[in-house]
Amino acid sequence: MSVLKLIVAYDGTNYHGFARQIALPTIQEELENAIYKLTGQKVEVIGAGRTDAGVHAKGQCCICRLETNIPIKRIATAINSQLPKDIAIQSAEWAPDTFHPRFDAKGKTYRYQINHSRTPDPFNYRYSYDYSYNVSIERMKEAAKHIIGTHDFSCFCAAGSSVKTTVRTIYRIDITEVDHIIQIDICGNGFLYNMVRIIVGTLLKVGRGKIEPSQIPAIIESKKRESAGPTAPPEGLTMLEIYYEGVLEK
Amino acid sequence: MSVLKLIVAYDGTNYHGFARQIALPTIQEELENAIYKLTGQKVEVIGAGRTDAGVHAKGQCCICRLETNIPIKRIATAINSQLPKDIAIQSAEWAPDTFHPRFDAKGKTYRYQINHSRTPDPFNYRYSYDYSYNVSIERMKEAAKHIIGTHDFSCFCAAGSSVKTTVRTIYRIDITEVDHIIQIDICGNGFLYNMVRIIVGTLLKVGRGKIEPSQIPAIIESKKRESAGPTAPPEGLTMLEIYYEGVLEK
Repeated sequence: MSVLKLIVAYDGTNYHGFARQIALPTIQEELENAIYKLTGQKVEVIGAGRTDAGVHAKGQCCICRLETNIPIKRIATAINSQLPKDIAIQSAEWAPDTFHPRFDAKGKTYRYQINHSRTPDPFNYRYSYDYSYNVSIERMKEAAKHIIGTHDFSCFCAAGSSVKTTVRTIYRIDITEVDHIIQIDICGNGFLYNMVRIIVGTLLKVGRGKIEPSQIPAIIESKKRESAGPTAPPEGLTMLEIYYEGVLEK
Repeated sequence: MSVLKLIVAYDGTNYHGFARQIALPTIQEELENAIYKLTGQKVEVIGAGRTDAGVHAKGQCCICRLETNIPIKRIATAINSQLPKDIAIQSAEWAPDTFHPRFDAKGKTYRYQINHSRTPDPFNYRYSYDYSYNVSIERMKEAAKHIIGTHDFSCFCAAGSSVKTTVRTIYRIDITEVDHIIQIDICGNGFLYNMVRIIVGTLLKVGRGKIEPSQIPAIIESKKRESAGPTAPPEGLTMLEIYYEGVLEK
């Protein structure tokens, strides 16, 4: 049995998240079913992170233990032939036996897209949050500077989550706007539950003038979820890339 | 009663085409239902062209006769509030009483997208034809030159269509490739049934080396559908723009 490492892209619109759930369609189940149909082996697919219902991925990293005669160059195409069209393996390779996509991850980048236009876009509504208020990108960028660094990010963590530590490091937040689409890329060594979506909800409140950029340090210091903005909806979020080495140099 | 002119964009994936059909979801029906919910008026929506099942539009032009107190600036947003998210009015204006979106059209541009990569794209499969063969863009461009102009295009017309004349003028065919997506924009004064999709199917056969670019004039002269290539599938096709004046200068 060897460890197969897969980079997976998916449109999460029609799934109840990554992690398997009874009687609900999930990414994990679709991947396991496709591999079963292809090889007859009941594998467990482990991902680098559990994306929520409606959240997308371009670079989810998954593994499973598999024995197969299919040449590694053909595995991605072979699995794709058994997958629905909204899930697609982008690449496949054999990984060291000890490789774990979650524990070995040094960092991740998530992208959040906001449609800032008053005209709805029927080709993009599944991938962006329709938010037609006037927002100041400059104010959002100023606020983002205060989030970068190593902090206790309890204020950006959804209630009910149990983690050893709520300290994380955010390396970069890049905010750009092209054709009424605001794109927020957030790169960090790890993320708390709903952290990206709460950061985005908070940045949008700053953009609208409801929170001052200078208030961000106090919000973080409060360690209280209720100090931060609302959780932005899932459709805008995409897991973009997982880094297993050299995230800081990127 | 005034003539309301609407520019409509839609993702056609989940619809059985533009034109109303009994017991099947269509764009026309959704538009008429939305206007009924908003105004209580049972209108007939007339489009510039009937897109087939699975075909998309960014610039479909529609009219209906309507009486309303809603200011024209707010009509698009008001109708959009009653539409599903895969259909969206892009703009609305009052038009002269005599305006007809089909009979007054001077020209149209359609776009056809082909995903030329071997890696499936879960974010684009609804909008492009997955065609992972090697094709030569240069050969396709050479073939396209022979299509431009005024010809009897019977060879590019699906069987069973009844039109007065099969002569049409193609003004431009622009073929570009970015990141494995081949984009073919075809602008003409009018199109026969399935004409764009048959032209694309023929150009792809040229691209693969199954037809020589120099054979195109003979294919057109034959006036026989079977001389041309297959009909490319609907998902790659988008009605991009309808011109009511000055198409030649564009």
